[in-house]
Amino acid sequence: MAPGILSVEPVVAKNGVTDGINNKTTLNKPSKEHDIILKTFRLLISDLCQQFNGGHPGGAIGMAAIGIALWKYVMRYAPHTPDFFNRDRFVLSNGHTCLFQYAFLHLAGYRDMTMDQLKSYHSKRWDSICPGHPEIEIEGIEVTTGPLGQGVANAVGLAIATKNLAATYNRPGYDVISNHTWCMIGDACLQEGVALEAISFAGHLKLNNLTVIYDNNQITCDGSVDLTNTEDVNTKMSACGWNVINVEDGCYDVGGIVAALERARASTDKPTFINVKTIIGLDSAVAGQAEAHGAAFGVDDVKRMKQAYGFNPEEQFVVGDEVRQFFSELPSRGEQVVSRWNELVDRYARAYPDIAQNFQQRLDGKLPSHWKTLVPSPESLSDKPMATRASSGLMVNPLAKAINSFVVGTADLSPSVNMAWDGKEDFQHPDLRTTCGINGSYAGRYIHYGVREHAMCAISNGLAAFAPGTFIPVTSSFFMFYLYAAPAVRMGALQQLQVIHAATHDSIGMGEDGPTHQPIELAALYRSMPNLLYIRPADSEETAGAWIAAIEAKDVSSIISTSRHKVPQLKHTRRDGVAKGAYVVQEDDDAQLTLIGVGAELSHALDAATVLRESKDILCRVVSFPCQRLFEGQSSEYKRDTLRRHIGIPAIIIEPYAPNGWERYANAGINVKRFGHSLPGPEAYKYFGLDVNSIVSKVQDYLMRIREDEALKGEFVDL
Amino acid sequence: MAPGILSVEPVVAKNGVTDGINNKTTLNKPSKEHDIILKTFRLLISDLCQQFNGGHPGGAIGMAAIGIALWKYVMRYAPHTPDFFNRDRFVLSNGHTCLFQYAFLHLAGYRDMTMDQLKSYHSKRWDSICPGHPEIEIEGIEVTTGPLGQGVANAVGLAIATKNLAATYNRPGYDVISNHTWCMIGDACLQEGVALEAISFAGHLKLNNLTVIYDNNQITCDGSVDLTNTEDVNTKMSACGWNVINVEDGCYDVGGIVAALERARASTDKPTFINVKTIIGLDSAVAGQAEAHGAAFGVDDVKRMKQAYGFNPEEQFVVGDEVRQFFSELPSRGEQVVSRWNELVDRYARAYPDIAQNFQQRLDGKLPSHWKTLVPSPESLSDKPMATRASSGLMVNPLAKAINSFVVGTADLSPSVNMAWDGKEDFQHPDLRTTCGINGSYAGRYIHYGVREHAMCAISNGLAAFAPGTFIPVTSSFFMFYLYAAPAVRMGALQQLQVIHAATHDSIGMGEDGPTHQPIELAALYRSMPNLLYIRPADSEETAGAWIAAIEAKDVSSIISTSRHKVPQLKHTRRDGVAKGAYVVQEDDDAQLTLIGVGAELSHALDAATVLRESKDILCRVVSFPCQRLFEGQSSEYKRDTLRRHIGIPAIIIEPYAPNGWERYANAGINVKRFGHSLPGPEAYKYFGLDVNSIVSKVQDYLMRIREDEALKGEFVDL
Repeated sequence: MAPGILSVEPVVAKNGVTDGINNKTTLNKPSKEHDIILKTFRLLISDLCQQFNGGHPGGAIGMAAIGIALWKYVMRYAPHTPDFFNRDRFVLSNGHTCLFQYAFLHLAGYRDMTMDQLKSYHSKRWDSICPGHPEIEIEGIEVTTGPLGQGVANAVGLAIATKNLAATYNRPGYDVISNHTWCMIGDACLQEGVALEAISFAGHLKLNNLTVIYDNNQITCDGSVDLTNTEDVNTKMSACGWNVINVEDGCYDVGGIVAALERARASTDKPTFINVKTIIGLDSAVAGQAEAHGAAFGVDDVKRMKQAYGFNPEEQFVVGDEVRQFFSELPSRGEQVVSRWNELVDRYARAYPDIAQNFQQRLDGKLPSHWKTLVPSPESLSDKPMATRASSGLMVNPLAKAINSFVVGTADLSPSVNMAWDGKEDFQHPDLRTTCGINGSYAGRYIHYGVREHAMCAISNGLAAFAPGTFIPVTSSFFMFYLYAAPAVRMGALQQLQVIHAATHDSIGMGEDGPTHQPIELAALYRSMPNLLYIRPADSEETAGAWIAAIEAKDVSSIISTSRHKVPQLKHTRRDGVAKGAYVVQEDDDAQLTLIGVGAELSHALDAATVLRESKDILCRVVSFPCQRLFEGQSSEYKRDTLRRHIGIPAIIIEPYAPNGWERYANAGINVKRFGHSLPGPEAYKYFGLDVNSIVSKVQDYLMRIREDEALKGEFVDL
Repeated sequence: MAPGILSVEPVVAKNGVTDGINNKTTLNKPSKEHDIILKTFRLLISDLCQQFNGGHPGGAIGMAAIGIALWKYVMRYAPHTPDFFNRDRFVLSNGHTCLFQYAFLHLAGYRDMTMDQLKSYHSKRWDSICPGHPEIEIEGIEVTTGPLGQGVANAVGLAIATKNLAATYNRPGYDVISNHTWCMIGDACLQEGVALEAISFAGHLKLNNLTVIYDNNQITCDGSVDLTNTEDVNTKMSACGWNVINVEDGCYDVGGIVAALERARASTDKPTFINVKTIIGLDSAVAGQAEAHGAAFGVDDVKRMKQAYGFNPEEQFVVGDEVRQFFSELPSRGEQVVSRWNELVDRYARAYPDIAQNFQQRLDGKLPSHWKTLVPSPESLSDKPMATRASSGLMVNPLAKAINSFVVGTADLSPSVNMAWDGKEDFQHPDLRTTCGINGSYAGRYIHYGVREHAMCAISNGLAAFAPGTFIPVTSSFFMFYLYAAPAVRMGALQQLQVIHAATHDSIGMGEDGPTHQPIELAALYRSMPNLLYIRPADSEETAGAWIAAIEAKDVSSIISTSRHKVPQLKHTRRDGVAKGAYVVQEDDDAQLTLIGVGAELSHALDAATVLRESKDILCRVVSFPCQRLFEGQSSEYKRDTLRRHIGIPAIIIEPYAPNGWERYANAGINVKRFGHSLPGPEAYKYFGLDVNSIVSKVQDYLMRIREDEALKGEFVDL
């Protein structure tokens, strides 16, 4: 047996596994051994929902046998060492069935997940670790799920992580990385676009270390799945490059499920889709109905279930000795797995000291200490105009080339986003060399995600969630298409995952592609999203600062938002200024006004200040403001010194986005409050009044207006 | 021949059409007749891109033969009556190939699309009707496309519109609605989640009046599609319930394409997917390569192409007489179609005067004049607490029941969103009655979209785009999941389509589902999105106002954002106050402060004001602020009178969202700047300091702070 491989007692499948389609749910009797476990589990779930008369019991109950198969027989993990690096990853994509996972974590012996905690589900306890959906902070939970479809894509990311680490570090006889990723989904995940994108991509990548287990209960909130989905799921999965296995009786046939799972783990060529027929809310009065999905069953029905099961209807939360006994071996079995793996890694370190050192660095989640020296220095930067998307490549390419934590991908915009470095290798199944002439391997770290922005970001969350700091995923696309990806970007921020999004073509300056491609309102979303840095650098120097800030921010996601078009290199921009969110680039003690410039339009502010001073005798200070959230983290003294509004100097923000949120920092705005227009970039700036001439006249206009109406200074004025 | 059916010369397919898979691209010689058309078209596209050295020539060139088949032989439309109601709809989902459509509109005789306009593609002309992606405002363009995948879903909406109108209005011998929807897509659309959702749903609905034409050139920006997608597309489509037809030689075989298109139109049972093999940038130096996608070919190569084609390399934009002649019949043929249809409708009006009157109302895009009386009056409203999601149903259900312009759908949340009215009929293929026991028909107006939020909104855009005012689509889901749908909501707003989104569970008050389901930052997106009303009503009366405002706003989309939990019915709320965006609900001439309450938390503001007055001797005015954009439309007098900040009364905004944007209206905020927490609603309000007690103490704190530091009044303070 290979080191790190857990021994599992052989389990015989009982005609429960078939290939192909046309299943019928024929309910087997459970084996005696599992009967009491299944009943105990189902009643526990019913009780947990009943106590506060809420929650999602039906799915968890329907999946009970799947849970036994996973936690007792198939998954390799260690309840007392929950962060064991080579553990199998389990993702509950149908996160509303979280009690399924919480209860199995409890039974499997995870220490934090006490019965007391289980009972905190839907309670008023602020310190509950049983929230309404699984959260990554909890022992035994790999990713936060809930918004449907995300988990599938996260699981693809976790499986990619394993493949990449294995291809990079494993050596003959030393499979230091060999874990499998298991993802549980419901009918809904198979309808969500993000899951469909990820499924298609996982099939392309031939991720044989990934298994999706489909809780096929044919019920969603509205009723039968037939109301909205009558496709041939198995054939569709097969067309996407997946193995398909059916389990006819997912309610009782633990043995059949185990056999299917083990077959999935043994797949050599493809990811596996296990279609398991179950019954939602089995044995409740609403079994097989939508009513079982999102509400407790009612006191009387839970009592009735207990009577039918031979349990005392007056007792709650009963987990008998037989059940405890059944799961009791799991912690020690897990520790054996851990110690075998530790021994393996020790031997590996002796056999391959160099690579093992690098491996240890990945385990520790650390970048090489010299990483910052890889970012081009201020002195080395050209003074020629350059698109900040090009600057962005200039900064991250050497990092990505040298440091194998970086996994960089794009949603089919390689020629536009500049994220590909010299000599980069694609992450691809090596077979594609012969079948399609595509070069790459699983050791590659450049990912062609296809035109799948949403899956790209959700998969990157999975990569980042594999282990803290082991991967720094970078995604890239036009900024506008981060609206497609927004639910995944949000999930990354919510989980405090370090994912860096390189968003290009970030203002009306992107030009001819027109209003569908010109972001107006999107920055307002990302500036108000917690745990996320939205950074718009103004030139190469600020782009360096943006990447440094994003890499140093270990527990947030970042968007580095850059221009399609060339912008001048500015004299007083500073990378350490970016770290402060905003800073003065042009001071004037006699200034009447502060002009705030952002990103590609900072140069417009500086040029306007020059014209105002030289031609109109109006003195302006200029502030560069690449990141609101970083600025918010500064002291109030720094903030006041930077903006000087507290001593009565009004500030005007110049940015071709909706002004929403800038009112905090400015008294007036030269912004864009309507959708864009298809014009070459410079013409678009003119059209929307953001060229230098327009800015100059709007500033003059503002000064006149506040002279006439003093109260205007206290309001925000759209210029 | 049925009235309204265009006669098409019979075209014989030349072995170009096959069922199944494994195509090979074998280039036939074009027929003599089409040879000159194809060459002229391809050179015209090359010239149009070359003039400003930009744009997307490759796809348009590859699809030339498809365009001839569509505009010359297959589509039923009228270039001189572009808004002919029963026209076939054409959607260019791969919108970056817009020159394909512009050039065929020009050749087919659309009057606005002059050669002069064609030449404005990528020019500095502000009045160009050839923007970088097709826009709905242009004659002959049905929907704005560009963000990939949207068009496919729009096409599904257009096809649903036809089915619903036909089932409602057609009578034996009077097929007043019989149009087909054609949708052109590229490789990328087949990767986007929104398209995959829509494809699955269209298959379920058996929309045999929908054809998707796949420009299968196997090239995206990054290179070969094999880099990222190696699935079996045809089998996948077939598993989703589509007919699949292959066209082997899509570059030249106009006849084969026509035969395939006609077979698709004749489909009786399913939508049709035509997989047409083409070569991107055919005959250019970069034919078949990614380089043909998004850049002009270069002056020399265009010259070389002209020489090879036997054209004068020095001439540009050449459309010869033979080509003009070929297309010349289309306008008059179209007018014949229109007049035959007009005659049909006249006879229909005599045969079925009642139904025809209603049909005419739909054609005119008008609601019955009494519609507002269907909204429950203030007097009729209960004074008992009610969730605003329930109020939302109360308002729109009678409208939807009585007025057949309303097509209401949900992303699998019927039990939660209250959008289903008594006796509603589902929009379903009638066959589902027998195959799945699902009731419904194409005349039904309640749509179970499944867990496909993004497609739901994109399909609704298609419904709204069918003809102005013919449909008022209503979507529904939890507010948080409008982040999934955001790209489609944006496209609706951009196109000024009246789509109303009923978003429920809209704050941390939604409770136990936790941070994945609790919106924090999402309102900032929608409040800054142009052409969109984001309305948060506070009680039943304001919910009435929200629906009235949304229905009266003909050229914007709206989100009506409601609570999961019960809220009290407030005394001074007014539906006409909602129309103004914000209004005073509690005045006090001696007030020190204004409290601004929004939606579900307006009652918190009112209760806090009471406690502050009665226990703390602090007098507060209270403003209800359901919609920022409606407020922005008011006079500056009204705005100042409502807020009174100009006379030095500070305002505090109370809303458990990120404050971004409220800084325009308030001096301080009791908001939420981090992600949510899984707790029962009232506990969540306490946890985040938005219960009445917390508000009272934060208000006191603020008053103390501004007494100590006057400058704070000029800044926005997070409390």
